[in-house]
Amino acid sequence: MSSGPVFLGLDLGGTNVKAGVVSDSGEVLSSASVPTSGSHGPDYGVQQIATAGRLAVEQAGLRVSQIAAVGLATPGTMDIPSGMLLDPTNLPGWQNYPIRQRVSEVLGLPTVLQNDANAAAYGEYWAGQARHVRSLAFYTLGTGLGGGLIVDDHIIEGEHSHGAELGHVILEMQNGRLCNTGQYGTAEAYVSATALLKSFREHLNAGTPTSVRQRLQSGEELSPKLIADEAEAGDQLALELILDMARYLGVTITTAVHVIDPAMVLLGGAMTFGRDETRVGRTFLERVREEFRRRSFPVLAEKTVITWASLGSNAGFIGAAGCARRALNLRRIP
Amino acid sequence: MSSGPVFLGLDLGGTNVKAGVVSDSGEVLSSASVPTSGSHGPDYGVQQIATAGRLAVEQAGLRVSQIAAVGLATPGTMDIPSGMLLDPTNLPGWQNYPIRQRVSEVLGLPTVLQNDANAAAYGEYWAGQARHVRSLAFYTLGTGLGGGLIVDDHIIEGEHSHGAELGHVILEMQNGRLCNTGQYGTAEAYVSATALLKSFREHLNAGTPTSVRQRLQSGEELSPKLIADEAEAGDQLALELILDMARYLGVTITTAVHVIDPAMVLLGGAMTFGRDETRVGRTFLERVREEFRRRSFPVLAEKTVITWASLGSNAGFIGAAGCARRALNLRRIP
Repeated sequence: MSSGPVFLGLDLGGTNVKAGVVSDSGEVLSSASVPTSGSHGPDYGVQQIATAGRLAVEQAGLRVSQIAAVGLATPGTMDIPSGMLLDPTNLPGWQNYPIRQRVSEVLGLPTVLQNDANAAAYGEYWAGQARHVRSLAFYTLGTGLGGGLIVDDHIIEGEHSHGAELGHVILEMQNGRLCNTGQYGTAEAYVSATALLKSFREHLNAGTPTSVRQRLQSGEELSPKLIADEAEAGDQLALELILDMARYLGVTITTAVHVIDPAMVLLGGAMTFGRDETRVGRTFLERVREEFRRRSFPVLAEKTVITWASLGSNAGFIGAAGCARRALNLRRIP
Repeated sequence: MSSGPVFLGLDLGGTNVKAGVVSDSGEVLSSASVPTSGSHGPDYGVQQIATAGRLAVEQAGLRVSQIAAVGLATPGTMDIPSGMLLDPTNLPGWQNYPIRQRVSEVLGLPTVLQNDANAAAYGEYWAGQARHVRSLAFYTLGTGLGGGLIVDDHIIEGEHSHGAELGHVILEMQNGRLCNTGQYGTAEAYVSATALLKSFREHLNAGTPTSVRQRLQSGEELSPKLIADEAEAGDQLALELILDMARYLGVTITTAVHVIDPAMVLLGGAMTFGRDETRVGRTFLERVREEFRRRSFPVLAEKTVITWASLGSNAGFIGAAGCARRALNLRRIP
């Protein structure tokens, strides 16, 4: 185990909270996951968060008092500086909840709050795929399309804690698809599990031939994983819709890169189609890059690196721990 | 005159170079403008730049040796850290030119290079309309659509000196208009003098009734100013095309705000339609705000300030001076 202070990272999701103890150099010393349910309300939720944290600390062979600081990553709208959840869609009953203060009280440790996608981005920047570059745009592909931006060790949190809503750039100003948030033509309406399933269902209803139909008839549920599997096995429609999404993501990235010009763009999250392990994953990434190259300034087309994130579902708690470390004014080791 | 160090700002444009001596608190102590011509090549250009600089210093009642540092703002593709112009479109013959070093040699002063739109943004942030906020997105409306981003006193220069190309976010992914840069559907293809004149000519050719036609027949040349004047005088087509542009600009801003979430968005540059002095200017700004509010997240729709920049054509040299000051590690006075 490396010397120096250690940090506790907590990543609150819709169904569980992940916790991990992380060293000063970004090494994961332990991790734990505890199921949680937003519907039991915030006070119960905070207990579950603390339980996950204590479990991780114990598994690292440490006492809570040996943790230098805690980083907490959560979804939903929030005010990062004051540590308040404002109106988190997936956590009913948590409106205007001082979550940072409550977690800090229960664990008895200084705690910082961060948006979950920002935290995952910082994880990749501090200890993952982007650890050797100066700036990063990070996309998390899941139910929605989240994002995080890091520039020179600075998290772009935004004036109203709405920085790096990278899934809410507008791709189609006219006749754009409707997004969950009520906006039209945003990236998330084209690039997300929600969007993929919606498009696929439209094709199923229209009678487009696809091997997916048989699997649904045998009782399976439509999911990005099922669609990706059938694409890998040769289904034309499945592959087409996945590559359509890649093309939209390429445009989404072009727009963000023209705003920020980061050294690296990373794709993470649950919906990454097997990444380099599958033909579909590789083709998806290549199509994203092609669309980006076709649309961006020449120097960016040539030099901007677009690739997979490397920390998987640990990125959130690692990054949260990194944010705690950063709050103590420790910068990334160059 | 305020005490403390003073700085020389230089702003190289297509037809002239503006220079000004600026105090430590962002006050303009003198300014000068010298015509220049990119077509005479860089060595002549550097002499003109130095002449403008010396004139400004003299007018401030100072000697060149009393200047702490020089900031130079230029258009075109560049490598900011190394101070090189790479391939500036409007400056033929200036390819791969070490402009920072040459200006520094000729004036005998430490010099920093900055992109002109970034410099103007920093001017507004340091000493203009945005001087009391923490973050800014700045648009310069002219022949093209330029941009600059400042977050916590940090200029978003980008990894490849392509940060804040705010005019190159994509508004229309399919069937987008062609932009000067060869990209399709970018903001600049809809929001720029070039775009406005192109649309207007299409309407003239199609025979759409407009009072502009008479002015052209009496020998005047089509310009954004002429179109704005006729709109102010009641011409329907002129007003419609200007407000169309406002709508596109509102979408452009929504996308950038969802990436960065700045406290303030400022509109500057030569094509601002008389700003609050005219009905057209006021209606333009109101239409931009409406479109932004309609498309952005509720908290941003409510809180993000969109208004006119305040430094006019001085923003470039003031900001360049501010960049010189910043290079000495002097932050904006809080």
